[in-house]
Amino acid sequence: MARWQPGTGERLQAAALELFAVRGYEQTTAAEIAQSVGLTERTFFRHFSDKREVLFRGQELMTEAFLAGIAAAPSDATPMELVAAALDSGAALFPSERRAHSRLRQSVIDQNPALQERERLKMSGLTAAIGGALRARGVAEPAATLAAESAGMVFGIAFTQWLQEGEERSMSDIEHELLAELRGLTGTSPRG
Amino acid sequence: MARWQPGTGERLQAAALELFAVRGYEQTTAAEIAQSVGLTERTFFRHFSDKREVLFRGQELMTEAFLAGIAAAPSDATPMELVAAALDSGAALFPSERRAHSRLRQSVIDQNPALQERERLKMSGLTAAIGGALRARGVAEPAATLAAESAGMVFGIAFTQWLQEGEERSMSDIEHELLAELRGLTGTSPRG
Repeated sequence: MARWQPGTGERLQAAALELFAVRGYEQTTAAEIAQSVGLTERTFFRHFSDKREVLFRGQELMTEAFLAGIAAAPSDATPMELVAAALDSGAALFPSERRAHSRLRQSVIDQNPALQERERLKMSGLTAAIGGALRARGVAEPAATLAAESAGMVFGIAFTQWLQEGEERSMSDIEHELLAELRGLTGTSPRG
Repeated sequence: MARWQPGTGERLQAAALELFAVRGYEQTTAAEIAQSVGLTERTFFRHFSDKREVLFRGQELMTEAFLAGIAAAPSDATPMELVAAALDSGAALFPSERRAHSRLRQSVIDQNPALQERERLKMSGLTAAIGGALRARGVAEPAATLAAESAGMVFGIAFTQWLQEGEERSMSDIEHELLAELRGLTGTSPRG
C-alpha cells in the first residue's frame, strides 16, 4: 500500500517553516526552501506568490470559517451568541494536530517585527469581517464593533494560550472558558 | 497684559502637525518644521529626538494616567471597576479642547502605515501596562488579560468615536456608554 504523501504545497510549507526557524526568515530564500525538498524555485513560485505567503496563506479561508458560524446561527441569536458561533466555527481550523505547526510558525513570526505587523493586520481584517457580518444581520453600533472586537480579543488570547507548551485543551474549550470569564467579569454590576 | 504664548515645544508640535497634514509626513523635514515658526533645526532637536516623536511623545504620561486610576481605586474593586477607573483617569488627557489637535494627528497617522504600526504598538504597550497593574493587584489570569484587553478595546473604540466630526460627547461619556453596552452584550445568559 502506498504511503500517504503530503501535497507539494504542504511539503514546501513544512520545509520553509523549518528553515525559517533554524536560519531565520530573512536569511532563507525561496530557492533554498525548494532545494531542501528536491524541488526548483520555479515550483515554489507555482505554489506561493512569495516567501511570506508560506506564513499567511489561508487568511481568506480563516475569515470564511468564522463567518460561516455567523451565517449558520439562528436568526434570533444575540450578538455574543453570534460571536460564540464564529469562534466555534473558526476553531475547527486549529485541531490539535495543527498545534506543532502553529507553534513553529509563531516562533518565526515572534522573531520578525514586519511579520508581527502582518499578523496584526490579519487579525484586524478578521475582526472587521466579523463586524461587517454582525451589521449585515442587523446588529446596531456600537454593539457590532464591540462584539466583533471581543471576538478578536478572545480568539487572540485563546490562540496564545493554545500555543503554550503543555497546553492540551482544544481551541474551542479555551475560547468557551474565556467567554465565560468575560461574562463573569463584565456581568458584575458596577457599584453605585 | 501680555498675551499667553505656548511653549516652544508646543509651537513646534502644532507647526509640525500642520505641515504633516498638508505636505505629508515623509515629505516634511525637521528643519522645515523649525523654519515655519522661525526657529532652527537645532532648536527642534532640543525638544524632540526625531520627527516621529512629535506624534508620539507623551506615551509614558498616558500610561501613567491610566495606571493612576487603578492605583487610586478601592482595594476591593472588581477587575472591571479597575478598568473603568483606568479609563476615567486616562480620559482626563483628552479634554474637548484637545479634539482638533487629535483629529489632525490622526489624519496624519491614517496616511502612513509605519505610523499606524507605531500607534498600534503604543496601544499594546498601554494594554500590557494595565494588565501588569491588574496582576500586581492580585487579579488572576485569564481575567487580568481579558480585563486589560477590554480596557484597550473600549479606549480604542471610544477614541475613534471621539474623533468623529460632529461628535460632542466627552471621552469619559463615550467610554461609560461603551462599558455599559459591553455589560449588556456579555451579561446576556447564553441559551442552553
